[in-house]
Amino acid sequence: MAEEAFSQRTTTCGGLTKADAGKKVVLNGWVHRDRNHGALHFINLRDRYGITQVVVDDDASKELQETAAKLRMEFCIAVTGVVRLRPDTMVNLDMATGEVEVKAESIEILSKCLPLPFMIDGEAEPNEDLRLKYRFLDLRTQGMQERIKLRHEFIKAIREYFYRTDFYEIETPTLIKSTPEGARDFLVPSRFYPGKFFALPQSPQLYKQILMVGGFDKYFQIARCYRDEDARGDRQLEFTQLDMEMSFVKRDDVLELMEEMFNEVFMKVQNVQLPAHFRRITYHDSMNTYGNDKPDLRFGLEIHDLNDLATKSSFDMFKTTVENKGFVKGLCAPKTEGTNFSRKVIDALQDTAKIYGAKGLAWAKVGADNKLSGGVSKFFVGMEEELINEFDAKEGDLILMIAQEDWKKCCTSMGAVRSKLGKDLDLIKEGYEFCWIIDFPLFEFNEDENHWEAAHHMFSMPQAQYLDTLESDPGSVKGDLYDLVLNGYECASGSIRIHDVELQKKIFRICNIDDATAQEKFGFLLDAFKFGPPPHGGIAPGIDRMVMIMAQQTSIKEVIAFPKNTAACSPMDDSPSFVEQDQLEELHLKAIFPEKKSDK
Amino acid sequence: MAEEAFSQRTTTCGGLTKADAGKKVVLNGWVHRDRNHGALHFINLRDRYGITQVVVDDDASKELQETAAKLRMEFCIAVTGVVRLRPDTMVNLDMATGEVEVKAESIEILSKCLPLPFMIDGEAEPNEDLRLKYRFLDLRTQGMQERIKLRHEFIKAIREYFYRTDFYEIETPTLIKSTPEGARDFLVPSRFYPGKFFALPQSPQLYKQILMVGGFDKYFQIARCYRDEDARGDRQLEFTQLDMEMSFVKRDDVLELMEEMFNEVFMKVQNVQLPAHFRRITYHDSMNTYGNDKPDLRFGLEIHDLNDLATKSSFDMFKTTVENKGFVKGLCAPKTEGTNFSRKVIDALQDTAKIYGAKGLAWAKVGADNKLSGGVSKFFVGMEEELINEFDAKEGDLILMIAQEDWKKCCTSMGAVRSKLGKDLDLIKEGYEFCWIIDFPLFEFNEDENHWEAAHHMFSMPQAQYLDTLESDPGSVKGDLYDLVLNGYECASGSIRIHDVELQKKIFRICNIDDATAQEKFGFLLDAFKFGPPPHGGIAPGIDRMVMIMAQQTSIKEVIAFPKNTAACSPMDDSPSFVEQDQLEELHLKAIFPEKKSDK
Repeated sequence: MAEEAFSQRTTTCGGLTKADAGKKVVLNGWVHRDRNHGALHFINLRDRYGITQVVVDDDASKELQETAAKLRMEFCIAVTGVVRLRPDTMVNLDMATGEVEVKAESIEILSKCLPLPFMIDGEAEPNEDLRLKYRFLDLRTQGMQERIKLRHEFIKAIREYFYRTDFYEIETPTLIKSTPEGARDFLVPSRFYPGKFFALPQSPQLYKQILMVGGFDKYFQIARCYRDEDARGDRQLEFTQLDMEMSFVKRDDVLELMEEMFNEVFMKVQNVQLPAHFRRITYHDSMNTYGNDKPDLRFGLEIHDLNDLATKSSFDMFKTTVENKGFVKGLCAPKTEGTNFSRKVIDALQDTAKIYGAKGLAWAKVGADNKLSGGVSKFFVGMEEELINEFDAKEGDLILMIAQEDWKKCCTSMGAVRSKLGKDLDLIKEGYEFCWIIDFPLFEFNEDENHWEAAHHMFSMPQAQYLDTLESDPGSVKGDLYDLVLNGYECASGSIRIHDVELQKKIFRICNIDDATAQEKFGFLLDAFKFGPPPHGGIAPGIDRMVMIMAQQTSIKEVIAFPKNTAACSPMDDSPSFVEQDQLEELHLKAIFPEKKSDK
Repeated sequence: MAEEAFSQRTTTCGGLTKADAGKKVVLNGWVHRDRNHGALHFINLRDRYGITQVVVDDDASKELQETAAKLRMEFCIAVTGVVRLRPDTMVNLDMATGEVEVKAESIEILSKCLPLPFMIDGEAEPNEDLRLKYRFLDLRTQGMQERIKLRHEFIKAIREYFYRTDFYEIETPTLIKSTPEGARDFLVPSRFYPGKFFALPQSPQLYKQILMVGGFDKYFQIARCYRDEDARGDRQLEFTQLDMEMSFVKRDDVLELMEEMFNEVFMKVQNVQLPAHFRRITYHDSMNTYGNDKPDLRFGLEIHDLNDLATKSSFDMFKTTVENKGFVKGLCAPKTEGTNFSRKVIDALQDTAKIYGAKGLAWAKVGADNKLSGGVSKFFVGMEEELINEFDAKEGDLILMIAQEDWKKCCTSMGAVRSKLGKDLDLIKEGYEFCWIIDFPLFEFNEDENHWEAAHHMFSMPQAQYLDTLESDPGSVKGDLYDLVLNGYECASGSIRIHDVELQKKIFRICNIDDATAQEKFGFLLDAFKFGPPPHGGIAPGIDRMVMIMAQQTSIKEVIAFPKNTAACSPMDDSPSFVEQDQLEELHLKAIFPEKKSDK
């Protein structure tokens, strides 16, 4: 059987060393760079494995010289030639193959390349839509090559851990019943059943719980999930999570397994030794100390409770806040090299605090000899040392304080200031700082809809001591919930689940879902709970975000081969797109265009 | 932090042996069986790992006895007790744990179970919809436990092979552009763009080709795929395939890699040694010899070409067929124990042949001393020995022949008879018979639409010797196509792909897709081919079907945790289902019900 003939590689562009000198080889790859030095023609040939220098010598045949002259950037070629040592002056120890080159004997052009819309090894990063439209070129860049490899290795290491520890990877369905809670479901119209729809899963939550009822005990899956959310921040319509669940476990079993797993994975993938156990911080303490529930522990700047000091001060606003059961909190921004706590800097911090609900941001500069100056320092006359000692503050530091009657607002606005200072003062250390946030409230009150709703999701177990006061005092109930936080990002959310049908119904009712609606939406889970469900719990780390952090990126698009853009479109294949009318008719659907018919 | 208290297992129900006698253990699991022998109460406790016998002795506390009395099938319980040897007469060597039992000291009921809709270890298999509605119970059966484990181990072994051989697993998007070819796409309405839709992928085909253009070289993915096909046979709306693609390869590279991979996987998972290389049969030979392109090689019954013999016979119908450039083919059904080639049996074979387009099925019985009798034997007078020698037939065998002017019909109708005989005569040996079918035609003529279309898909490379006659004689063009067949099932389909934009456009045009339409639908692939695409090829084995074969099942539903039923519904979660009106409004859609409004 004949095939289109071309010379197939005998090795890759990443592997040749001095030991190969004299060998005849074939390389396949792309023209990465291409330059003439007098009669010599140098080609940097690139593939997934590396770059090898190919030389067309001045003694090359006319045919070879002519072919070489035709080469342009990113032509795909096959080179047959002999490996030889580079002259000493040409050795490049920065390249794995930098001690050798291949003297070309023949070059075949496997395919040509139009002029590039952007350079593959360019310094200047093209704009995002150009990168996404030409993703096939963008994927050739060193950055994308490394990140896709990292993603592969991260998921591989996760799988190897779960393989070894006797978990089964079980595929759950992705055409499921629509039970929208929280985010919107993507719907998939049914052709057989007019007016009926499947939904794409927001997570395999209910199915993994059913697997526990089905006796599968230790389950995991690298699962594609879908949320039809408004485009904001760094979101994708589809994303990937490590979904896992275990039967007969308590909270600490899940936490310890995750710690062991990430220890193994980070060692394998990044050669980084994580602590055997991650810090555990209660939701309450995290809010109090870091001003949010996903603290970045790569820097300190802890928030202090200043109610006592505030009461003793002469600042009426502070005193009144405390009298009204409110909170005064503060932190101390350290003077670092180049720091200048100018009015402008302080104004910017105040703006940040106000976005998160603070009425103001009080400040005082620490001077020599336990002096305070500026801002609210006059209200702390006689108490300077006490305030300075509270923070162990040094000359040049800036003490910042917020008074707020609402605890959460006080925490979050102080937390926003902390986060900004961490970045602005360059306080963030390199490395990975994991922690667990535990003891979350189970419910939060939805002011708009005037009822309680699940803070996490409705399948999480309340902690045992709150079982009697679930209905009388939902706001105080803590759940068997846990989040894994890495470098200030929430990376995983999990819980011990409810497995009691009556308790589950009670939770539904508290969340304003009556029994009939619960049965209609979640009947299969409630039914399953009637047939000997085991105690179970799990967690679901987000793959995209964790790889993003490991790759030191700030957008998950950088670690996804074919992401959508911020407008939720794919510039490459131009999806979403209009479809044939008969496709819609078969699905029993009619598109209703808004009054002003969109061109998009 | 308090959690609901229960005694957590210290070991599983599958692991206790004589060596554990005297140890205090906790087991968690389900009451598999439960029986009283006088004052003794025996509980077979089951988990994913096995079954352990628990005994409540007659000296048990009143509390323990009362708890034990409350137990029913499939209650989920925790048992604390001491391992002891069973009395010699009670040892059960069929059970891994059959030499020991656990003397219960306490039993906690973790959850109760309603009366079961069917028995977990029942002999009688409940009907399919009942099994799917109560899938959480069906999953507890030994069969489902074993098959889901097998599926996990099969996919795990595949991944381990690709991990070791330096492939990257790369996730391709599942919200893509709709480019329906062949099967229908599932559509996903866009909320942001009225009237626009994403499609769910029928396969990652175009994206994996783009990954090759992107330089990723060796890619694989265990990929979820979707086809909105009419419910027929053993199909699912969503299915899983091993998708793989390599750059710089020729056909045999792909075939040999697959052979090596399946050798490793079948050894790991089933301890079966496959041949290092699988037989390669051309499409033409497979049709001629087995009557289809997915031959079951677990039995012989090869089809013979009888044109020469037919010409020499006195059977006008045979002679005319050959004169008209037609075909006469036959096979010899062996007499096996209990075989009776009665009129009724022959009639049934004739019916089978006719379904596949044969006008009739001629037959003759082989008697003693090279005699033929019955059927068309009178037309072979004087040629008996020649006909019998053709098949090396024995006394009692039945020779069956079909004459047809259409080659394909002649082959397939004879092939249908062959398949039926293989089953009916119990000729099928145990084991795995892989083969490659190669040299497929690239195009087939669509009579309904009166144009050529791709036999496989439009991205497959024509074999080089046909490049000049592509347009003048599409019907004779063979492609660089290959199917992997296992035990009569097509398990994988693959090809070397086109990577030349002009050739790709030519193929589109032959398939009646003009340049403008091609650009509209497949522009991103055509664009990618303008930027130095590498030669590449791949294959995509179907996971569901292969696991089904390994599990000796005849339906893929048996190897999928949560399949849809034959009506494309999930009886468990009752999907597809109606959704809220505001969900549709947000998607700019209106459901159009057929005139007689369906209740479903």
